[in-house]
Amino acid sequence: VNEDILKKFEPVFYPKSIAVVGASSDDAKSGTQFLSALVSAGYQGSIYAVNRSAGKSHGIDIYPDLISIPGHVDYVIVAIPRIAVSQLLDDCAAKGVKVVQLFTAGYRESGTEEGIRLEKEIVEKAHRGHFRIIGPNCIGIYNPSMKIPYGPMNNIGEPGPVGFISQSGGHGGRFIELAMERCINFSKLVSFGNGADLDCVDYLEYFAADPETKIIGAYLESVSRGRRFLELLRQVSTVKPVVIWKGGRTEAGAEAAASHTGALSSSYAVWKAAMTQAGVIAAESLEELADTIVALESIVSPAGRRVAIVSGMGGGGGGESVLGADACIGQGLEVPRFSDETRRQIGSLLPPAGTILRNPLDLGGSIPGLPVLEKIIHLILADENVDILIVQEHLGKLMGSLLGGQVSAINNVLVSTWKAQYKPLVMVTPAWAPSPAALEMEKKLRSTGLPVFRSFDTAARSIARTVSYYEHRKSL
Amino acid sequence: VNEDILKKFEPVFYPKSIAVVGASSDDAKSGTQFLSALVSAGYQGSIYAVNRSAGKSHGIDIYPDLISIPGHVDYVIVAIPRIAVSQLLDDCAAKGVKVVQLFTAGYRESGTEEGIRLEKEIVEKAHRGHFRIIGPNCIGIYNPSMKIPYGPMNNIGEPGPVGFISQSGGHGGRFIELAMERCINFSKLVSFGNGADLDCVDYLEYFAADPETKIIGAYLESVSRGRRFLELLRQVSTVKPVVIWKGGRTEAGAEAAASHTGALSSSYAVWKAAMTQAGVIAAESLEELADTIVALESIVSPAGRRVAIVSGMGGGGGGESVLGADACIGQGLEVPRFSDETRRQIGSLLPPAGTILRNPLDLGGSIPGLPVLEKIIHLILADENVDILIVQEHLGKLMGSLLGGQVSAINNVLVSTWKAQYKPLVMVTPAWAPSPAALEMEKKLRSTGLPVFRSFDTAARSIARTVSYYEHRKSL
Repeated sequence: VNEDILKKFEPVFYPKSIAVVGASSDDAKSGTQFLSALVSAGYQGSIYAVNRSAGKSHGIDIYPDLISIPGHVDYVIVAIPRIAVSQLLDDCAAKGVKVVQLFTAGYRESGTEEGIRLEKEIVEKAHRGHFRIIGPNCIGIYNPSMKIPYGPMNNIGEPGPVGFISQSGGHGGRFIELAMERCINFSKLVSFGNGADLDCVDYLEYFAADPETKIIGAYLESVSRGRRFLELLRQVSTVKPVVIWKGGRTEAGAEAAASHTGALSSSYAVWKAAMTQAGVIAAESLEELADTIVALESIVSPAGRRVAIVSGMGGGGGGESVLGADACIGQGLEVPRFSDETRRQIGSLLPPAGTILRNPLDLGGSIPGLPVLEKIIHLILADENVDILIVQEHLGKLMGSLLGGQVSAINNVLVSTWKAQYKPLVMVTPAWAPSPAALEMEKKLRSTGLPVFRSFDTAARSIARTVSYYEHRKSL
Repeated sequence: VNEDILKKFEPVFYPKSIAVVGASSDDAKSGTQFLSALVSAGYQGSIYAVNRSAGKSHGIDIYPDLISIPGHVDYVIVAIPRIAVSQLLDDCAAKGVKVVQLFTAGYRESGTEEGIRLEKEIVEKAHRGHFRIIGPNCIGIYNPSMKIPYGPMNNIGEPGPVGFISQSGGHGGRFIELAMERCINFSKLVSFGNGADLDCVDYLEYFAADPETKIIGAYLESVSRGRRFLELLRQVSTVKPVVIWKGGRTEAGAEAAASHTGALSSSYAVWKAAMTQAGVIAAESLEELADTIVALESIVSPAGRRVAIVSGMGGGGGGESVLGADACIGQGLEVPRFSDETRRQIGSLLPPAGTILRNPLDLGGSIPGLPVLEKIIHLILADENVDILIVQEHLGKLMGSLLGGQVSAINNVLVSTWKAQYKPLVMVTPAWAPSPAALEMEKKLRSTGLPVFRSFDTAARSIARTVSYYEHRKSL
């Protein structure tokens, strides 16, 4: 079955040739922007432009219609007015196109009878013409390994483990941007808009089967084929974690969703109960989606609830300890005592003044010498009472008071001590307006695979979600 | 009564002379850092240094003891070992000092009998010597109007409307930093640590009476004189909004709080119920404190719940509308229909394609011409169905695609249209790692007095809290 699904989606995510219908010499046109991004991303398949006006678009020959293209076309991006789509789809059928992605809007989401009728028509044409439709009213796919950018978006990330399904084109784009900033990388992402033909069930089936995808994220406003979708979620989440943010939860939100992607959303309470039962992790915003994925990337089974906290590295201290413990317990995690042996050994390493020798361990704003820091991190990670360690580091202050190389050296100690052990370490680096230097250091930390959060709150929530997910999976 | 309180606190917040005991020529010493910050901040009163070692510290003559200082001393900062404090307090009494701030720690928070005994002793000495104590185990006061910095902190902000009480020195410092980034300015702030003499009741009485303070914020781990404190909160919050973040809410947090400031915290549920009844706004983190204060600074009575949303300025669009509506409704706000007249007029201004003409109004990623933008903002703010307007602007994208001057021009239209009316406008500028240019533009927007948040979630929560506060006040 997996083989069949992968084969069915081959031309969706790995097209060998792409035609952009609506690309021209006018850079203000969406079609041109799709084409331009595809060219500059370095997509290696054949690229064609189609438009009634002849000439070239970003170095690509423009054909007057699809039929005139000499080679085969796997995938067609449609960025032309709705009125011209019907004829184009006939051409797609004649040309043997496999996938049609409609950026064009004005279908079911318009709420008009005409729009609804036309959406039915394009689906019928797809069935008869043996091609699949992504959309309409969507940005389509993003596949870094194929150098296929997200629509007109000009930057492209590295390939990675996250598969993402977005009903909203805008949220898809914002999530890619947020992901780049958080060092989250994608196997593939799809914005599917109205999902007239291929819908959330299809995409979920694919990501479940796709060997490149280890974690599945989604932004959904509604669900088609609800029973099948739930059943599928239940199966998938025993193998791969699934994190979903549901938009259109409230009446006004649902109304906006209806005119956004023509979605009919059900009550959020019903939705949330169903998700929990299916083992899905529910997020409440793009930021929470990103946070949860950051945690899922590095905390794996068996994951425990017992958290050790080290605070006051370069600022903060006592208040941060209180906050850290509150945040963890508030999320259902535990903040246990260190073992007597750990206390004894840490006690022999640190000066009594300024240190509070318990869990949370408060370093009182100062940084011990690197060999001592290494021993402390090692001791805590090795403590049999501890499943996971959160270290709070005030990067802004550290970068202000130390040389960059010194901060790197401190972080290298954290990273190497962590990598030498089998327990997760999570960093909290508080900041609203991080300086460029602090931001760079944060990214450097993150690029080692270490999860980095900006607050104890988000760290604790993301850890708790991840641990709960593995507990649920284990209970089955 | 107010006059008495202001007089009592005159030497606490407006000392005419300050002596730093423990300052020396050694820059690594805390005392030296307190003195150095005081000198470089430009404090205009007399500054003295006291230490057994003679010489100078940052240009200030060092006296061997307090008694040797020729002039009068209002305020003494104590940064010497605990063992030397008793003698110093006798000197303070002899010298006629009015306020003693103890950075020195090792009292009740140590949990030792010795520490508890010594804390009682210093309070007795203060009573007998007719001076007041701030602390022990604290950073003391911050008063920008007097150019008194926050302990050793090297930067000082502008004077402003926010009075802040912090039981934690670290959180006090972090809050000042966060406040600088969010353009929140202080009348005064105090970190009071163990609060052995002057406690949260005293400081709250002062901020209630202080004409410079319009909004009161606090981080507390525990409360002394609980009944009096609650009664006072009830009174104050009918006149000035009070926002409190309570730390040590959970068992582990409370344990950390006990060793942090010797605080004994009560059940958080009990606390929260009492706060709600007293009309206090409860926050759950420093970030929420800041967000709430940003909202309180610009949304004043009569504040209504009916929110208009404009999304998709420079990015986002449909998905953002759904999110914005969900966030507002989720916080108990309303997202009403625009009046027919508003719809008609906006409809005549905007192209039908790409625009979704409802509330939320989705501009579909593009920015209309400035005269049109001005009319739209004006129409929505003037709509009788609307109490408040949230505009989502993707500053990062705008700064990437337009010139800085163009973005400024757009923002100027927003600001001037808002200032010409009597309804609040709130900006949402999503970002995790804002570019320096976007950050500067965000700060520029914020410096006009416009509240700026990074997500619909935080905007909606802060607005809802502010509106609820005014509703509560009106209901009394």
